[in-house]
Amino acid sequence: MTQNIYDSDEFFEGYSQLERSVQGLAGAAEWPSMQALLPDLRGLAVVDLGCGFGWFCRWAREQGAARVLGLDVSRNMLARATAMTQDEAINYAHADLEQLSLSDSAFDLAYSSLALHYIEDLSGLAATVYGALAPSGRFVFSVEHPLFTAPTNPGWVAHTDGRKTWALDSYMIEGQRTTDWITKGVIKHHRTIAAYLNLLIGTGFVINHVEEWSPSEEQIAANPEWDEYRHRPMFLLVSARR
Amino acid sequence: MTQNIYDSDEFFEGYSQLERSVQGLAGAAEWPSMQALLPDLRGLAVVDLGCGFGWFCRWAREQGAARVLGLDVSRNMLARATAMTQDEAINYAHADLEQLSLSDSAFDLAYSSLALHYIEDLSGLAATVYGALAPSGRFVFSVEHPLFTAPTNPGWVAHTDGRKTWALDSYMIEGQRTTDWITKGVIKHHRTIAAYLNLLIGTGFVINHVEEWSPSEEQIAANPEWDEYRHRPMFLLVSARR
Repeated sequence: MTQNIYDSDEFFEGYSQLERSVQGLAGAAEWPSMQALLPDLRGLAVVDLGCGFGWFCRWAREQGAARVLGLDVSRNMLARATAMTQDEAINYAHADLEQLSLSDSAFDLAYSSLALHYIEDLSGLAATVYGALAPSGRFVFSVEHPLFTAPTNPGWVAHTDGRKTWALDSYMIEGQRTTDWITKGVIKHHRTIAAYLNLLIGTGFVINHVEEWSPSEEQIAANPEWDEYRHRPMFLLVSARR
Repeated sequence: MTQNIYDSDEFFEGYSQLERSVQGLAGAAEWPSMQALLPDLRGLAVVDLGCGFGWFCRWAREQGAARVLGLDVSRNMLARATAMTQDEAINYAHADLEQLSLSDSAFDLAYSSLALHYIEDLSGLAATVYGALAPSGRFVFSVEHPLFTAPTNPGWVAHTDGRKTWALDSYMIEGQRTTDWITKGVIKHHRTIAAYLNLLIGTGFVINHVEEWSPSEEQIAANPEWDEYRHRPMFLLVSARR
């Protein structure tokens, strides 16, 4: 059972105020990179694992997806997603991604944004996604970058010579990390980059592209505080095909 | 033109005293993990990119490889490799891996241990290797892990609470790094993990396995100072197929 932090009132309130919650996809710095990994959506059946407020589901339909299923463990988020959506080809459903079952070969694209690092049994989910994809179907997802999830005490070190370095430890020690983000006690599961990729390959997926996301020069110029992402990337993006 | 540090007398003298130089494959901590990525070598044609003293070339023949070509930029190393080898099915040749040409479909396995982080034009070399492999041929290599090559000033930070963390910066800033290892001014080329993998995928390779090497519990028990590799892995191992 995945921790359902999104249904804690304090977390939901804080999360709702993030730029990516208010602005949707345009408020997510990594969205242009995610978008570049997606196939032409016209006529495709799409499932969104961890759909949140449904921003991607609605966007996929605007791009011509035939039908979209948005899944989330948070009833708070699904309620808001439903309220924001008037489209019979978009369905939302409550699901614990660790207990998921989907019809065989039902989708052409499985998409997931920043949800899978909450999942303990990721190999079970990968097998479910693989089975639910049609031949040549795609699995495109982002997670928090393993360099971000690894440390026992995440943070930067200021050096006397002016350098700022990321205090990395425990990178190879996979498993649960409890951190404070919006609220206390958020549980994530740290995996190495290799673990994510080998898990997919072991399931049968072919890796199409791997991206350790950092901002473009233009994005850094507009948001100078993002310069730190060039030292320690924030997101890992993966595109794989069945 | 790759820097040929191995033919500097000071470097060669120091390198010759490393455990992996004296003991060969058994002196390389990551060798069991590399070995696990190799196919059955019986009857295969093998090329070793950066063969050094030829330890792998001779081992490959012991495993039944039909013929082995060992390539290196260092004439010092090739001279010693030749002196250590009595086997007409093993050939050594001087080659700058950035200027390499190989016959089409001439090999079943391309192997490289800790050489490719010296290469600036790695996509050119990957294309050469791809063309030189028979269909379904394998490319198995190790490089220094990008977390090791990234920092502008590599080292550990001791914290007042007893933690020791790796001072990571510049991970996303690819390119040349000049470090002191055995001698001053050793030039390496830092790439992200994603860059290594996308370069292979872009060439046509399918990724079989990715390993961020850290020692086993048994290895740490025997070499307690290796515990730091659990915090910052030392090697990146990749297996790909044509």
